[in-house]
Amino acid sequence: MAEESGVRGCMVIRPWGYGIWERIQRLMDDRIKAAGIDNCYFPLFIPLEYFEREAEHVEGFAKEMAVVTHHRLIADDNGSLIPDPDAKLEEPLVVRPTSETVIGSAMARWVQSWRDLPLRTNQWANVVRWEMRTRMFLRTSEFLWQEGHSAHADRDDAMDETLRALEMYRSFSQDVLAMPVIAGEKPENERFPGAVATYSIEAMMQDGKALQAGTTHYLGTGFAEAAGIQYQDKDGAQQHCHTTSWGVSTRLVGGVIMAHGDDDGLRVPPQIAPHQVVILPMLRDNDEDAALLEYCEELRAANAAQHAFGEPVRVLLDKRPGKVAQKRWGWVKKGVPLILEIGGRDMAEGKISMIRRDSLWNENGKVEFNSHTCEGFTSQAPSLLEAIQAKLFTEARDRRDANIVRGIDSLDALAAFYSEDSRYPGWVELGWSRPSGDELNAVVKQLKELKLTLRNTPRDGVPVEGTCIFTGKPAVERIYVARAY
Amino acid sequence: MAEESGVRGCMVIRPWGYGIWERIQRLMDDRIKAAGIDNCYFPLFIPLEYFEREAEHVEGFAKEMAVVTHHRLIADDNGSLIPDPDAKLEEPLVVRPTSETVIGSAMARWVQSWRDLPLRTNQWANVVRWEMRTRMFLRTSEFLWQEGHSAHADRDDAMDETLRALEMYRSFSQDVLAMPVIAGEKPENERFPGAVATYSIEAMMQDGKALQAGTTHYLGTGFAEAAGIQYQDKDGAQQHCHTTSWGVSTRLVGGVIMAHGDDDGLRVPPQIAPHQVVILPMLRDNDEDAALLEYCEELRAANAAQHAFGEPVRVLLDKRPGKVAQKRWGWVKKGVPLILEIGGRDMAEGKISMIRRDSLWNENGKVEFNSHTCEGFTSQAPSLLEAIQAKLFTEARDRRDANIVRGIDSLDALAAFYSEDSRYPGWVELGWSRPSGDELNAVVKQLKELKLTLRNTPRDGVPVEGTCIFTGKPAVERIYVARAY
Repeated sequence: MAEESGVRGCMVIRPWGYGIWERIQRLMDDRIKAAGIDNCYFPLFIPLEYFEREAEHVEGFAKEMAVVTHHRLIADDNGSLIPDPDAKLEEPLVVRPTSETVIGSAMARWVQSWRDLPLRTNQWANVVRWEMRTRMFLRTSEFLWQEGHSAHADRDDAMDETLRALEMYRSFSQDVLAMPVIAGEKPENERFPGAVATYSIEAMMQDGKALQAGTTHYLGTGFAEAAGIQYQDKDGAQQHCHTTSWGVSTRLVGGVIMAHGDDDGLRVPPQIAPHQVVILPMLRDNDEDAALLEYCEELRAANAAQHAFGEPVRVLLDKRPGKVAQKRWGWVKKGVPLILEIGGRDMAEGKISMIRRDSLWNENGKVEFNSHTCEGFTSQAPSLLEAIQAKLFTEARDRRDANIVRGIDSLDALAAFYSEDSRYPGWVELGWSRPSGDELNAVVKQLKELKLTLRNTPRDGVPVEGTCIFTGKPAVERIYVARAY
Repeated sequence: MAEESGVRGCMVIRPWGYGIWERIQRLMDDRIKAAGIDNCYFPLFIPLEYFEREAEHVEGFAKEMAVVTHHRLIADDNGSLIPDPDAKLEEPLVVRPTSETVIGSAMARWVQSWRDLPLRTNQWANVVRWEMRTRMFLRTSEFLWQEGHSAHADRDDAMDETLRALEMYRSFSQDVLAMPVIAGEKPENERFPGAVATYSIEAMMQDGKALQAGTTHYLGTGFAEAAGIQYQDKDGAQQHCHTTSWGVSTRLVGGVIMAHGDDDGLRVPPQIAPHQVVILPMLRDNDEDAALLEYCEELRAANAAQHAFGEPVRVLLDKRPGKVAQKRWGWVKKGVPLILEIGGRDMAEGKISMIRRDSLWNENGKVEFNSHTCEGFTSQAPSLLEAIQAKLFTEARDRRDANIVRGIDSLDALAAFYSEDSRYPGWVELGWSRPSGDELNAVVKQLKELKLTLRNTPRDGVPVEGTCIFTGKPAVERIYVARAY
């Protein structure tokens, strides 16, 4: 999937991991385009002055950015390379940690009148945040993402866009990644630097921890004021735009791994599996191999002509040398949904042996091989893939639902729940009074002592009753508390 | 298409320009995958020591790289942001100008035995080369590209890969970009830093200048020795791999603009046009608009159900407010291949007015509107698009062929040919003796005085006779001489 690169905090994403990201990219991009949003590309480097304009924003990011100060290297007296003192930049450049400032600067050029609004754009890019503790896919200094940015005439339109993006992420996680999430608003302390409101999708990993898997932000007029994004309204008056931003990243690949993996490795949801079906011919290094390969190639082509999830089925005929058992475990570990094994006798009988990655073992603790005719398998492949996709989602959703506890009525009860003795792995749903400022800081501090974090407040309209266990005030909304990545 | 970003040498790529790049990316990626090559992703940052290992390579790149020296900003006494002196990196990091070194370092981990070879990978990424003079799409400090990298057991296999990539670029330029190119070897002085041989595709722009539009490199064992990419051969001996690399970039977008544009703007080859057909309803801001829009939407859907070049036709129904004539010129300028205009009377008669971007004007100097029935246009759309693609290629090829001169038999004749008086805009094809070292440097210097450059030596097996005008020795191969971007 990925490995340490030798470069601090940066990973090398290997083909299978990158293939999953390519699938995520393709399907998310389809949704972004279907929403009427065009892709652009903005510079990797951001001048310092752009950051200076938005005080809150820089406060949030200034601590973890890569700074370019020179544009040339020279050899020193020992022949080692050093930044050339004569090639120092007049103004250092920041490697983008996110692009609100540089995109805002472009929007200020592009927006003049209410007719130009809404202005909606997206880019696929790499960004860098200097992280102290890194973890493959979940927190790396460099990561890949999409970032959507929009400018609107008023708050309502900007908020609609913010929540539209949130719903896009929620349904994408559920329908494509088979990963159930809770969509909601982050508490004030977890807001994106400079945002008026931040929303997230939160997924439960199999260890019960929460993973923030995507965020959307309503930025108010703060970034527009800093960048000068103004428009002339219908009455001829100059107004500042209301802006939004929203993103998901390669972190989703980490989420998929931890949401669906089992003791035998990954289980990749069919919609994002680079190969959905892998065919393993039992080659014997003799004259019969050619006929077997031809037979397998016909099977590959027949399956590739089928459609699942509205796309051609992705089938690989794995012709590499090596033992089938070894190759099988390689693909099991990678999480290919369906693996077919075919030997000379199978060919003679027109049959195949099929393994379903989501139901690998039978009751006797042996690998479950399912015998099919070639035609039978081919015609069923789409429905099998759809069944696996559905099963992975159902499993993950049931596990999540079973690990959300309600009814905890005091901070002591909460502490006991997550104590060393109980080792409770899931989330707690609480009613709370939506504290802010110092009152919220006190809550965050109390939770931090329990190694707990506030996740988000769900947006599902369920009424709330009772008392906030943190403030003793009446609860006004629900919030999830969890250990988190 | 693109605009200055306010960040030195970096451009903002706007939706239409980025849409063309997305088309190039998608179609090139299909070819790369079809060749059996998987995509990976490698870090943006490269430690200095990686560069120190390959002397020739760093010599070529050290002069133009962005160097990261700090990982945090702080506010100074005036509240301005500065790199935090306490957050200086122990070893500076280079923003990748190309990834041979960091990918070589990964290959050294991945390759152990001859069974692991060939190892072939590709990445789509941004790279940075600090350019003094920049020009939109053609030479920017940051640009987007794909870089393919491979390791092989021997020279022949590596050379096959190098030339396979060259042929992929040649046919892609011709078949997809409608841009004829000459594929050949770069002279020694133009080799990629550290390469044993560099090949390029060279395109002629409409001003007669040459554009190097893609390169492939056979790197010998130099990079493998520097990075330690070794394998155990069948006899158990340790051997260094032979490596290759190859890339094309957003420069191709610049090539397409300059190869096909005319006085009215761009002419985008249909295969890479983000929209191939744009429908402009003549809205009148009255009750009849709804019926007209419905009619146009049906036409859009009918055309989108057609296939051209093996893909669904890309059709946009442009519902924006505004005058049709103004919108028409916007799309003409962008270079959409087919523009349809439909008013109420057209609807009543079941007709449309069509403009072909490649034949915009009639003999009388007026815009040529072609009348079609809706069904007639829809059924012809694929063949019209294919005809436009073919015509753009034929035009560009004929122009190129007409602007390559042969038979120049002395340096004086060459100088006269490109003198202020003649203003010859094209290329000269010469036989030459393939000089190297100091002899070649003298040639390059002579040409530089004439503002000319050596492009490449074509790989088409045509025999060569006569004498080299530079060295007086017998010619052994042909070479193109041209002014260049």
